Amino acid sequence: MGGSLAMALRPYLPHLTLVDTNLHTLQQAQPWADVVTADFATGIAPADWIILATPARTILHLLAELPTLKPTGCLVLDLGSTKTEICLAMEQLPDTFQAIGGHPMCGKETAGFAAATPSLFQNQTFILCHTSRTTSQLEQLTLEMLSWLGASPLFLPPTLHDELVAAVSHLPYVVSAVLMQTIAAQHNPQAWQVSASGFRDTTRLAGSDPHMMLDILLMNKTAVLAHIEQYQSHLTILRELLLTQNETALANWLIATQQQHHLYRASGQQPPP
Amino acid sequence: MGGSLAMALRPYLPHLTLVDTNLHTLQQAQPWADVVTADFATGIAPADWIILATPARTILHLLAELPTLKPTGCLVLDLGSTKTEICLAMEQLPDTFQAIGGHPMCGKETAGFAAATPSLFQNQTFILCHTSRTTSQLEQLTLEMLSWLGASPLFLPPTLHDELVAAVSHLPYVVSAVLMQTIAAQHNPQAWQVSASGFRDTTRLAGSDPHMMLDILLMNKTAVLAHIEQYQSHLTILRELLLTQNETALANWLIATQQQHHLYRASGQQPPP
Repeated sequence: MGGSLAMALRPYLPHLTLVDTNLHTLQQAQPWADVVTADFATGIAPADWIILATPARTILHLLAELPTLKPTGCLVLDLGSTKTEICLAMEQLPDTFQAIGGHPMCGKETAGFAAATPSLFQNQTFILCHTSRTTSQLEQLTLEMLSWLGASPLFLPPTLHDELVAAVSHLPYVVSAVLMQTIAAQHNPQAWQVSASGFRDTTRLAGSDPHMMLDILLMNKTAVLAHIEQYQSHLTILRELLLTQNETALANWLIATQQQHHLYRASGQQPPP
Repeated sequence: MGGSLAMALRPYLPHLTLVDTNLHTLQQAQPWADVVTADFATGIAPADWIILATPARTILHLLAELPTLKPTGCLVLDLGSTKTEICLAMEQLPDTFQAIGGHPMCGKETAGFAAATPSLFQNQTFILCHTSRTTSQLEQLTLEMLSWLGASPLFLPPTLHDELVAAVSHLPYVVSAVLMQTIAAQHNPQAWQVSASGFRDTTRLAGSDPHMMLDILLMNKTAVLAHIEQYQSHLTILRELLLTQNETALANWLIATQQQHHLYRASGQQPPP
């Protein structure tokens, strides 16, 4: 995500420093930056504007270091997958800092610079969360950056963001990962041979970066657990319909599912195929 | 599926009759056939070779009618999503019939002739199930047909087929459909606005034809229920890891999931993206 952002922003920035602790990533990133470094303190020293694009708990650590490393303050945006804790941490920054929470609703199950592409954000929703450290200057600059990316801003309170992404992002990951675990546990290589695009698509999110997902699940634990419980209830309903062979009720459930899928697709909010 | 097959086979057949009870489908199908008809008896009267491409329980009904409607017998192939009951029904046909079970491992969540494409079967696995009514003549003809389609044959016993597709096709449908139901039940249109490609892909199968899925779930009930139970166990494991905030075990679970996803993708059996 950070790599894709660097590629997309490069033409618009007078100077771009990329910080990553992975030396291989730094090597790949070199053509897209003026300076690459593995040292956070060195990287942010001359910066007017810092964009934190790491797993969510690492963002918390980095935010905690900012007051010491950057006593003069600067503009801060993050791309973390959860927002409540991160926005609270932003509000703890000294008032020399201006800070806004961000979460682009795109991404790939493949991480790393090799998977980066500058078009990643085009026509995608980019959620923004105001904090008490958000100035109108920072908001304007962030909206201008989104226009460079071709992304559409959506302002949400951090808690509502976390509730919504638990539903449409974290629960889908859980559902996909558990499917992968269930089938893999059967140790039947013939299953792969018989599998088609349905299995591939439903398990795509199971390939997500485990480091990122660990932070997400732990930082959005309450909302994710609530959604898993609701999912379990709906799964039990379907299982009972099948177990009791209640054909009319089962048919109605299946028809309603397809109708809900049509409504969702017709909402036009999902990305193009 | 039947429409795609007709398009793909048209260049190789001296005569092609398409039977469908939907008059709109018949109209769309007209350019791809010599004769279109809504009457099964009329359609099959002159046929040497019948391919049954309907939901699985309709295939059972049609097979039961064949001895009366077609006393001289003919070659029969079906494309049904489950195979055990269908192959047993094929074995009940008089010995004037030659019959083989088939199941192409491709398809779309959108049904109907408008979604048909002759390339649907290219590079896809096409499962074949021998019955006591399968002659070597029919097997050769079926393999030749698969070469016209560009599909790869995979011979499986009907019961193993049903077990494997419960794992990689029917369970993924259940998982996807329950996700759709869970989120739709929250009645929050903002959820669609925040959703991205992860939600879209994980819920793609929820758009599947309910008529087809009803037949599949009922005809493969035992295997599907067993897989739902296994899925529930794995979901409970993940839920407990999160509930107890067992960070090391949770991290290991997430890492193992990604590794299994890599192994599956590296198996090279899944269709191209």
